[in-house]
Amino acid sequence: MKTFHNPHHALHQGREEMFRGRLVPCHEVPARLDHVLAELQRRALGSLHTPPISDAECEAAIARVHDPRYIRFLAGAWDEWVAMDPENAARDALPSVWPLGNKHAFRNDALPLNFAARLGLFSFDSGSPLTVGTWVAARAGAACALAAAREVLSGERAAFALTRPPGHHAGPDFFGGYCFLNNAAIAAQALIDGSVGGAKAPRVAVLDVDFHHGNGTQTIFYERPDVFTVSLHGDPATEYPFFLGHADERGAGAGTGFNLNLPLPRGTGFAAWCAALDTAINAIDHFNADALVVPMGLDTFEGDPISGFTLKSEDYETVGRMIAAVGLPTVFTFEGGYAVAEVGVNAVNLLEGFCRSC
Amino acid sequence: MKTFHNPHHALHQGREEMFRGRLVPCHEVPARLDHVLAELQRRALGSLHTPPISDAECEAAIARVHDPRYIRFLAGAWDEWVAMDPENAARDALPSVWPLGNKHAFRNDALPLNFAARLGLFSFDSGSPLTVGTWVAARAGAACALAAAREVLSGERAAFALTRPPGHHAGPDFFGGYCFLNNAAIAAQALIDGSVGGAKAPRVAVLDVDFHHGNGTQTIFYERPDVFTVSLHGDPATEYPFFLGHADERGAGAGTGFNLNLPLPRGTGFAAWCAALDTAINAIDHFNADALVVPMGLDTFEGDPISGFTLKSEDYETVGRMIAAVGLPTVFTFEGGYAVAEVGVNAVNLLEGFCRSC
Repeated sequence: MKTFHNPHHALHQGREEMFRGRLVPCHEVPARLDHVLAELQRRALGSLHTPPISDAECEAAIARVHDPRYIRFLAGAWDEWVAMDPENAARDALPSVWPLGNKHAFRNDALPLNFAARLGLFSFDSGSPLTVGTWVAARAGAACALAAAREVLSGERAAFALTRPPGHHAGPDFFGGYCFLNNAAIAAQALIDGSVGGAKAPRVAVLDVDFHHGNGTQTIFYERPDVFTVSLHGDPATEYPFFLGHADERGAGAGTGFNLNLPLPRGTGFAAWCAALDTAINAIDHFNADALVVPMGLDTFEGDPISGFTLKSEDYETVGRMIAAVGLPTVFTFEGGYAVAEVGVNAVNLLEGFCRSC
Repeated sequence: MKTFHNPHHALHQGREEMFRGRLVPCHEVPARLDHVLAELQRRALGSLHTPPISDAECEAAIARVHDPRYIRFLAGAWDEWVAMDPENAARDALPSVWPLGNKHAFRNDALPLNFAARLGLFSFDSGSPLTVGTWVAARAGAACALAAAREVLSGERAAFALTRPPGHHAGPDFFGGYCFLNNAAIAAQALIDGSVGGAKAPRVAVLDVDFHHGNGTQTIFYERPDVFTVSLHGDPATEYPFFLGHADERGAGAGTGFNLNLPLPRGTGFAAWCAALDTAINAIDHFNADALVVPMGLDTFEGDPISGFTLKSEDYETVGRMIAAVGLPTVFTFEGGYAVAEVGVNAVNLLEGFCRSC
């Protein structure tokens, strides 16, 4: 299995995030990716590549998933932030005001001129600092997702997009949860389009195993029947990112029935988690997908500082084997996991479990 | 003219607010009210009273304007915040995650259990710290608004609710812009209901002269024809609180035609501002109101640190005279104004201009 890693990931390095009412050092740090890369090398699991994707291919694929106004916002955000105040160059952009949720609030035709307003409009938290290097790093991450999709469309069983910032919380027109571009959704759409390879995979399943609900991915595909989005996660009544991820959110319009949420209580251990994964896999089998995308969060780990399940490092090999048993061409994208020292071992345990079963 | 001042206002004293990506000391401080009170005493403008309103009257009136779930949230918020983490007792509550604005996002029936989620759900910015004393101070502020409404319903020409936290950004179920309970809306509703006095004023006009759009008041009355809400303010395309306050927001349903926004560009001086006030007053004359509520912000002042108009201290006397010429029983509520040393003089200039013309 090839890994496509993001050579520009460390350009995105937030300083502080708002967390429970105060500014704390960021949990989502470059060392996370470095640990995974080192562990892949140590175990010699597959080969490592930077993504052979052109800027034009990358931009076209991003535009298939994200709103043009949001893309323009992200691409110019840092310059606008610094233009507001030259001193802003020394601190990251964090939103501090957002639109009201009621029906007479923000109209879609009235995009504010003020950058601070657009920063709040296009986000759902103040824990995801937008930095000088965010756009370049995120765009290069989308290239990793595309390279992995191409690999799978070329007949390989699986590929891994090892990138950060992560992606599964980013929606059509919003960032948050440390995510800016939805790498998993970009991979899924590229699989369907066949835009980076000769073949196509018209029906794609997304199996999100991150501790946190994949609210971005769900939102992107919520009205579509060609992408079946499944997420196992902490119950949104009590766990971040809240609001979305309930069991009764099954999709809408043509997408009705093509979203499956399996919320689990804080403290869930491996046995109960596995039972939910079985449910997810059975549903994916029933969907009859041509390919699978796995937003691979490792924050279900018992040592994760901001999550609430209790999986152990050795459990991830079992998870990998279970995902392999789905029997589909599979793209993995690197998502959460904030126990930095352990995230490399946990990620590679999962991937090795997968590879051993193929 | 009687002034009803809030004896508990200083219980609400935020430490820091998120402002342009960082935490800064709060702009909305207890000294603001103290300066107004001192200037009223210095000039002996009317008499000073604490509000003679019972808790039961106050709670009934708050419930006429605010959502029961929001009221329960506010009343219990501090205890919930500290219950999350005992160390929270040493810092104020600021939201850091909020619901997405899209149509498949938050459902009204799924109120999160997690306090951090509800904090974001019931707010629109992270600049309004919720403190140990916020609820008691805000509730006592509503009592000031009610006492002023009663005074006017009893036949007095005018009364002043001198309270903080301010109110005009607070909506049916949201806080923000330093506001938690909408004192002006509570006064307007009490005037209509006659709930704190014998008479009733079935049609009320609200004339918001704060620099910032009265998004809370607009939202509360947007579908109602009995309250005509008018606001002169910085253009929401460029000025906080953004998103609402455009000229084409005229109300909805039965309230269509009963909201008037007069956005003005940053840098607007007194001549252009007065022309807009004339437009507002003509519209109010046409509405044929029984009473007037004036959310009185003084942040149109040239020296205001977070606003963008250029009114001078002497201009406020003219503003008071112009409002007096409307000829209606009038409740004033104290709103913004962050040039702390000058806010007392500016507020009392306005009130004195009003009183001299009655």
